[in-house]
Amino acid sequence: MKPAYGADPNRYQFIPRVLVIVTHGDRVLLLRRSQHKRLWPGKYNAPGGHVELGEDPHQAGLRELVEETGIRVEMLHLRGLITAETGLDGSGVLVFVFRAEAKDVTLKASEEGQPMWVARSELSELDLLPDLPQLVELTLDQPAFFYLYKVPTADGGEMNRVRLIPRG
Amino acid sequence: MKPAYGADPNRYQFIPRVLVIVTHGDRVLLLRRSQHKRLWPGKYNAPGGHVELGEDPHQAGLRELVEETGIRVEMLHLRGLITAETGLDGSGVLVFVFRAEAKDVTLKASEEGQPMWVARSELSELDLLPDLPQLVELTLDQPAFFYLYKVPTADGGEMNRVRLIPRG
Repeated sequence: MKPAYGADPNRYQFIPRVLVIVTHGDRVLLLRRSQHKRLWPGKYNAPGGHVELGEDPHQAGLRELVEETGIRVEMLHLRGLITAETGLDGSGVLVFVFRAEAKDVTLKASEEGQPMWVARSELSELDLLPDLPQLVELTLDQPAFFYLYKVPTADGGEMNRVRLIPRG
Repeated sequence: MKPAYGADPNRYQFIPRVLVIVTHGDRVLLLRRSQHKRLWPGKYNAPGGHVELGEDPHQAGLRELVEETGIRVEMLHLRGLITAETGLDGSGVLVFVFRAEAKDVTLKASEEGQPMWVARSELSELDLLPDLPQLVELTLDQPAFFYLYKVPTADGGEMNRVRLIPRG
């Protein structure tokens, strides 16, 4: 059978992820990643994960938020997109970055890690994923929609470009 | 070399596209697709195309708009996302749907097709791509961000679900 919608699998593709920045007052919801995680064990990140077949990105964000932290919200607001080159032949990473405000603050841990509420002023004391401070600022401290483009560099660093689009 | 950002190519992926709904007053910018196009030859659609390696979705939208119609705008506003299942093993289609208002209306044709300005009231007289009327309405006639999820059905139709998220 021919693929629907003219889809051509030889095109450049993105592995889709979601990241959810949830606040309650001046606190941000973080997850200390389990020590057994393949990626970034023991580090602090916002909740998130992959978009799976059958989901739109909004559904994936709500699902990951509940699974990883026990927090249920009615809706998520898309605040920006991260596109990252990976070195893979033909596949980048695309991250949908959402924000939400929690009413209930009761947390529930999972195998993914330990969720916790952290005051903004204490974020810098934690072993955060490197891009989290920038993402928290882009999501919470300015109103424009953001596009963050990242390319790893040969020295182990990255090129990181931000484009801000005022709300229309 | 290990892929950057922990990218796992065995994950579900999306082939990324952009679609740009550009208006000037009550007219909408359409493209009559060339007869030699693989997909939907001769039909009318909004300008758009694929996101390529090295681009963020916003850049891809600006580029496709200029290439297909000659219209340059400063910025695009992301109004919704379409995710579609394709029947391909592991690859869906993801469409970033933007809107923009054109200042200059001078059009320039390309090999992709013939661009033209069409009054909203005359849209229904053209041989449009089937989902275009719905996308024009979602983009221009209501303020919420939309998620449109599409799955082709065995009888050649599709399941089509819309989720609207009020602006936060």
